[in-house]
Amino acid sequence: MATIAVASDTGLRERYLEVRKRSLAICEPLTAEDMMVQSCPEASPAKWHLAHTAWFFESFVLREFLPGCRLYDPDFSWLFNSYYQTFTEFPEKKLRSSFSRPGLITILSYRDYVDQGILRLLETGAPAEALTRIELGLHHEEQHQELLLTDIKHALFTNPLQPAYLDRDDEEPMPKVLPMEFFSYDGGLVEIGQNEIGQNRGDGFGFDNERPRHKTWLEPFQLGSRLVTCGEYLEFIEDKGYERPELWLSAGWDTVKAQGWQAPLYWQKSGGQWTVVSLRGKQRLDAAASSPVAHVSYFEADAYARWAGKRLPTEAEWESVAANAPITGNLLDTGSLEPRAANAFDSRQSLPAQLFGDCWEWTASAYLGYPGFVPLGGTLGEYNGKFMSGQMVLRGGSCVTPQRHIRASYRNFFPPETRWQFSGIRLASS
Amino acid sequence: MATIAVASDTGLRERYLEVRKRSLAICEPLTAEDMMVQSCPEASPAKWHLAHTAWFFESFVLREFLPGCRLYDPDFSWLFNSYYQTFTEFPEKKLRSSFSRPGLITILSYRDYVDQGILRLLETGAPAEALTRIELGLHHEEQHQELLLTDIKHALFTNPLQPAYLDRDDEEPMPKVLPMEFFSYDGGLVEIGQNEIGQNRGDGFGFDNERPRHKTWLEPFQLGSRLVTCGEYLEFIEDKGYERPELWLSAGWDTVKAQGWQAPLYWQKSGGQWTVVSLRGKQRLDAAASSPVAHVSYFEADAYARWAGKRLPTEAEWESVAANAPITGNLLDTGSLEPRAANAFDSRQSLPAQLFGDCWEWTASAYLGYPGFVPLGGTLGEYNGKFMSGQMVLRGGSCVTPQRHIRASYRNFFPPETRWQFSGIRLASS
Amino acid sequence: MATIAVASDTGLRERYLEVRKRSLAICEPLTAEDMMVQSCPEASPAKWHLAHTAWFFESFVLREFLPGCRLYDPDFSWLFNSYYQTFTEFPEKKLRSSFSRPGLITILSYRDYVDQGILRLLETGAPAEALTRIELGLHHEEQHQELLLTDIKHALFTNPLQPAYLDRDDEEPMPKVLPMEFFSYDGGLVEIGQNEIGQNRGDGFGFDNERPRHKTWLEPFQLGSRLVTCGEYLEFIEDKGYERPELWLSAGWDTVKAQGWQAPLYWQKSGGQWTVVSLRGKQRLDAAASSPVAHVSYFEADAYARWAGKRLPTEAEWESVAANAPITGNLLDTGSLEPRAANAFDSRQSLPAQLFGDCWEWTASAYLGYPGFVPLGGTLGEYNGKFMSGQMVLRGGSCVTPQRHIRASYRNFFPPETRWQFSGIRLASS
Amino acid sequence: MATIAVASDTGLRERYLEVRKRSLAICEPLTAEDMMVQSCPEASPAKWHLAHTAWFFESFVLREFLPGCRLYDPDFSWLFNSYYQTFTEFPEKKLRSSFSRPGLITILSYRDYVDQGILRLLETGAPAEALTRIELGLHHEEQHQELLLTDIKHALFTNPLQPAYLDRDDEEPMPKVLPMEFFSYDGGLVEIGQNEIGQNRGDGFGFDNERPRHKTWLEPFQLGSRLVTCGEYLEFIEDKGYERPELWLSAGWDTVKAQGWQAPLYWQKSGGQWTVVSLRGKQRLDAAASSPVAHVSYFEADAYARWAGKRLPTEAEWESVAANAPITGNLLDTGSLEPRAANAFDSRQSLPAQLFGDCWEWTASAYLGYPGFVPLGGTLGEYNGKFMSGQMVLRGGSCVTPQRHIRASYRNFFPPETRWQFSGIRLASS
Repeated sequence: MATIAVASDTGLRERYLEVRKRSLAICEPLTAEDMMVQSCPEASPAKWHLAHTAWFFESFVLREFLPGCRLYDPDFSWLFNSYYQTFTEFPEKKLRSSFSRPGLITILSYRDYVDQGILRLLETGAPAEALTRIELGLHHEEQHQELLLTDIKHALFTNPLQPAYLDRDDEEPMPKVLPMEFFSYDGGLVEIGQNEIGQNRGDGFGFDNERPRHKTWLEPFQLGSRLVTCGEYLEFIEDKGYERPELWLSAGWDTVKAQGWQAPLYWQKSGGQWTVVSLRGKQRLDAAASSPVAHVSYFEADAYARWAGKRLPTEAEWESVAANAPITGNLLDTGSLEPRAANAFDSRQSLPAQLFGDCWEWTASAYLGYPGFVPLGGTLGEYNGKFMSGQMVLRGGSCVTPQRHIRASYRNFFPPETRWQFSGIRLASS
Repeated sequence: MATIAVASDTGLRERYLEVRKRSLAICEPLTAEDMMVQSCPEASPAKWHLAHTAWFFESFVLREFLPGCRLYDPDFSWLFNSYYQTFTEFPEKKLRSSFSRPGLITILSYRDYVDQGILRLLETGAPAEALTRIELGLHHEEQHQELLLTDIKHALFTNPLQPAYLDRDDEEPMPKVLPMEFFSYDGGLVEIGQNEIGQNRGDGFGFDNERPRHKTWLEPFQLGSRLVTCGEYLEFIEDKGYERPELWLSAGWDTVKAQGWQAPLYWQKSGGQWTVVSLRGKQRLDAAASSPVAHVSYFEADAYARWAGKRLPTEAEWESVAANAPITGNLLDTGSLEPRAANAFDSRQSLPAQLFGDCWEWTASAYLGYPGFVPLGGTLGEYNGKFMSGQMVLRGGSCVTPQRHIRASYRNFFPPETRWQFSGIRLASS
Repeated sequence: MATIAVASDTGLRERYLEVRKRSLAICEPLTAEDMMVQSCPEASPAKWHLAHTAWFFESFVLREFLPGCRLYDPDFSWLFNSYYQTFTEFPEKKLRSSFSRPGLITILSYRDYVDQGILRLLETGAPAEALTRIELGLHHEEQHQELLLTDIKHALFTNPLQPAYLDRDDEEPMPKVLPMEFFSYDGGLVEIGQNEIGQNRGDGFGFDNERPRHKTWLEPFQLGSRLVTCGEYLEFIEDKGYERPELWLSAGWDTVKAQGWQAPLYWQKSGGQWTVVSLRGKQRLDAAASSPVAHVSYFEADAYARWAGKRLPTEAEWESVAANAPITGNLLDTGSLEPRAANAFDSRQSLPAQLFGDCWEWTASAYLGYPGFVPLGGTLGEYNGKFMSGQMVLRGGSCVTPQRHIRASYRNFFPPETRWQFSGIRLASS
Repeated sequence: MATIAVASDTGLRERYLEVRKRSLAICEPLTAEDMMVQSCPEASPAKWHLAHTAWFFESFVLREFLPGCRLYDPDFSWLFNSYYQTFTEFPEKKLRSSFSRPGLITILSYRDYVDQGILRLLETGAPAEALTRIELGLHHEEQHQELLLTDIKHALFTNPLQPAYLDRDDEEPMPKVLPMEFFSYDGGLVEIGQNEIGQNRGDGFGFDNERPRHKTWLEPFQLGSRLVTCGEYLEFIEDKGYERPELWLSAGWDTVKAQGWQAPLYWQKSGGQWTVVSLRGKQRLDAAASSPVAHVSYFEADAYARWAGKRLPTEAEWESVAANAPITGNLLDTGSLEPRAANAFDSRQSLPAQLFGDCWEWTASAYLGYPGFVPLGGTLGEYNGKFMSGQMVLRGGSCVTPQRHIRASYRNFFPPETRWQFSGIRLASS
């Protein structure tokens, strides 16, 4: 199997089935043993992702809205809770690597049981809040689909044999890079963020952290016409970028030294030749190609920008431009699993390339609540808000982000030292 | 000695002498042994502060601008460098506790030598850049005066005998607390920040991180009329605030558990009675008094605000209000060394009390560069900019902040778990 | 399946087949997922044990002695090397939990391939050194059989659901404990240790660390007639044994505080009732029964002995008595998987019960080389000798020790804080 | 001041005065600031040593035996307790660097107060147990005199300026090294250890861990005629000794990598030239000289011996030889502060050189209780016994050991990674 296919957007029942099916499709190339590996504290075993996404529907939909609901297994209530303190106790995250039982077969049965419950609920007429929760659950599962792929990539990379997730296609070689341009924007008083959830379910879903839509003032700024490429990043390395503290934030420099970073995650050098490990195995780095650099931390993105005489954009700058860009559709569902080349960007309309679905783009904005931010009520209020400390916002989605997760207002967030996501660099300047 | 006196603001030469003299006055109650203690990784020995502030003038003023300058001791160039990577190598911070040599006598002689150089430079006509650097050096030394006091407080507290820095005055008891009110503000498009350094030296000094002055949009908001008191914070404790994860940011809750926090730093409970350790020794906590709670982390300030149904203000909200408030003068120079009571605030003008010089007020804003931020050139560019990661902004100044460090645009910053500064809580709401 | 059966001792070919078969039999109750778990740094995944024991035969026998030997997979040479620095590089131990590939099927095929090679070598006439190495490899594999069971026990215990390895038999309840007696021995100049390997292969195998046989002087001493029981150890707990520093070695007390120990590993208290987790699931602790306490560290054994007014025996004291005791045979091969009751000991002959095959018995002897100790030559010299630092000797074998590993001269060794082995307490006095 | 002089052995009163005076003499070259430094967790500030040794006399002698005894300051009872759990609570060891108060002046006054008490007790007729305790207290203080010097050496070395404790004398250069010989001994049944304390006070003092005198069996063995020199150790370094894991114990190799060891502590290389830091400053390493290598860990001593095709002696081997050697007297009291050259050893009598008073000699023996070991009663039982875990025995005394601490039966002990003591290498073989 070489691609992970899923159908187009339709009604909630169909979408539910499609989304749930895709989680399994992602795991198809994996053995039950692969699905046990937790290769770093921020990742989870694939089997856990399958279980936890079922748990979400059972805990927040079936339990409350399905008449006569019986839990699949009462122990699963706490076993597969990730971090909802007000729901139940839950195991330490690092223990997930010990969950050999329940076995994969049981987890698949659990997913099936939950699916039957959701379908029954949909058939018998679910209240509006239940529908909203199902919608939320689907977005939740799509987040975990991305994590499934990034966690698997890391798990197989950690294995000293470094097996590939999928075979390499006989793909066209990546085209040569286009020159970087900078497009100018006037700024001024702009609006960013989503409207209220009630108003735009379906085509306008948004998490609580994307709301409320609000005004913000921007000074004039410029954005790079495409993402920074591997070849450009290689120049930074060869200019001793990892050895010059003046290019780095203080915390970034400490991290470089403590971790011994000398290149992005998944880059390896052997015999003078750099290679990059992807989900399809190891490839020689082609410095002339259009491939964007991925798997850099915020610290590296920031240092690169400083070295280049630029800076990273704020999330408001980014969104104010991206809101006008069309969301082109290949991404995860085409099975590409690697960032695309920068197709010709639109200089006339000042629309940069690769805004959506290639690499998450580190912004210069800390992850904090928007003015007037109100978390969801109850336990689901723990979904996003409690993480608003010590993390930076990323925008745009990556090559393994489900398409319905790609939108201008989406706020992803990770600590500044994070590298295991497909995270890249968009330059900006004032 | 019971107070630390320094004269009013005058010309640069006089100010230089005053500021330098105050650093020594702060150390007067200390022995050479006291001045060796480094009681936590974020603090430094008092002797080191005295040496490093001399080093700053020698390295950035005398070395470049004093004709025929000879260094006091070439080894001091790197020995007392704090963190300027582009200047020299420097010792690990934790080694400062091993600097028994040079002895205090030598450090005092070093300070004297540097003073002679600066005075000579001022007499013989220093270029404008030298004057700017001297001004910067004085602000630098004033920052270290505050750190001297907070580090000493922590050093003496760490000593199991907990000696006091100064004897307690026969002070008036702290008056009863006034009811908390909330003042409303319209927001809109406001300006915050300082103008360029060249334009306002003397009366308008500002660090690079306070610039440029820029527009920002504010939604309507409210600010509390005074700081949260010890008594109010005690209610949070008694309502099991430290045991309820739903009140905390996730990183905050992890810190509470890892550190075993159950109260602010310097609070101790014995026989059912809370006491608070100040620079003047241990005092019973008076829940009815107007004393603001101090030495709380951002995590605690944020959790308290959530518990109270409020939030912390952003730095722009804070500055837009504080810019209209008079800076009243007692503060460090009165030797009070403890936050004052909330004097009657001005409801008619919506001016909260205690905006300046009682406790640093945690804001909800991450410490990042303003739009268009440009660090100082050369080595001095490392002063502020490289710390713009993982820290939160505090505003307003504390009871041990030198008065010239008290201004509406001043941006202090610390990691969110920091507690050894006089940091308190101002509530806000939308 | 309820027992792990293996036939009696016979010729080398038959023994080889039996031993290799038993490793698989031990894994029969496990899923491939179970065999991925590495629940603590000192344990390894079950799959790794299966692979590493094949690697041992391939690396030290086939590679050197089988004409025309081809490796199963050249990568396995380093992938499954545990710690032999002079052989190849090897992965960090903690990475073993990432070895989802090669999958279990491949490992079983690897074992089969190695078995074919060994059988061919035996058929075609192996040189004496090859036979010696095969013998060593069988003892090596038997060591790992014990580790397989202790690692599985810990892996399943770490899983929050705590599944059992095997169902509980309808066993007879454990008989009541017999009174503890102390048998006296004269000491004097005794000999301990094994003769040279060449002299006693087959019935007299010994590792290099058991040699040479040598004289040692013993003062008169006494040994307890049986192991300390769970009920006796419970008295120590109830007498606040874990709260009294004067009962502990300094390093032991530090460990108690750092780890929060309050009872042996696998003991849990709920609703006032202690339970003990075994390979057959959770059981109520019966204080009156003969069950020896297991899974205590050296520190706990030493503290218990001090509390009881006794001490632990030295390894020479232990061996001088045990050398006269018959090795009774049920042990691992009966599938009991739990320590037996103390059958009536032989007071007339001063032969204590439970010397062999119930719990490893902590001795008061540090693990060091015997006088004249010479490690094996070449890479195999790393087998034992390099661990002679910071570990204590244990004697006698446990209920999961293969019977051929039970002998009076066998020296097991672990760091003093180790608890995941079946380690118990034999008292002694002077 | 260039030497630390103390008079010869006399009555208890005189000896008390001499010993107490020498502690102060050792501190004479130090400032109060120097006496605050605690440069590694195993060391203590010099001021603390002065206070703790007074505390010992106050707590274990005056408190119990001086009629009407009043404590100097009740807080000192727990403040200067080192580790006696059954006496009082005590501060964490690492907090000793915060003891700026009580100041040095007060500590000197405390010592004086204690001295008056002891003298009064001696004058008025102390009971036998009191005299025994005073004797013990003097030996305790002498142990701390050695620690004072090793801790000061480390404190000044940690200071980036590396000041010297004393000026260098115009000493004779160290003579050329004599060839290493190996003397043979028959072994057999020997006795080691001290007789009971009551029997040999005065000329025959011994700690509880040196008792009881007991038989032990020795195989024939050889001992090196002198200590290993710096020049010989340099050959090990140049033969890549620190890069070859096969030379090291496994725990030793882990330590080499974790600590980045490439040479003994206090060795530094600059411009191809090795220097060694002593209490008299930095000196070029003279590979041809007789200077013994010092400040090596057990791991390094063991690896060196393996590299040299030898081993370390056991403590019984060492003592059986050293018991026949005269204790020559220069050592600490000559102020040499560095190990001496190996004077001509006595081949005819098989008496190696440097057995006493140059470097502590690592033995191959773990620190455990002798057969029949009984700790002192009460709190003083914590003096030695509770440390019998994870440490190795050293024998012979160093160049900074007070002469009365030099005896054949003395058992020093440190963890195997310890390097800040004057610890060297005596080779042995079977």
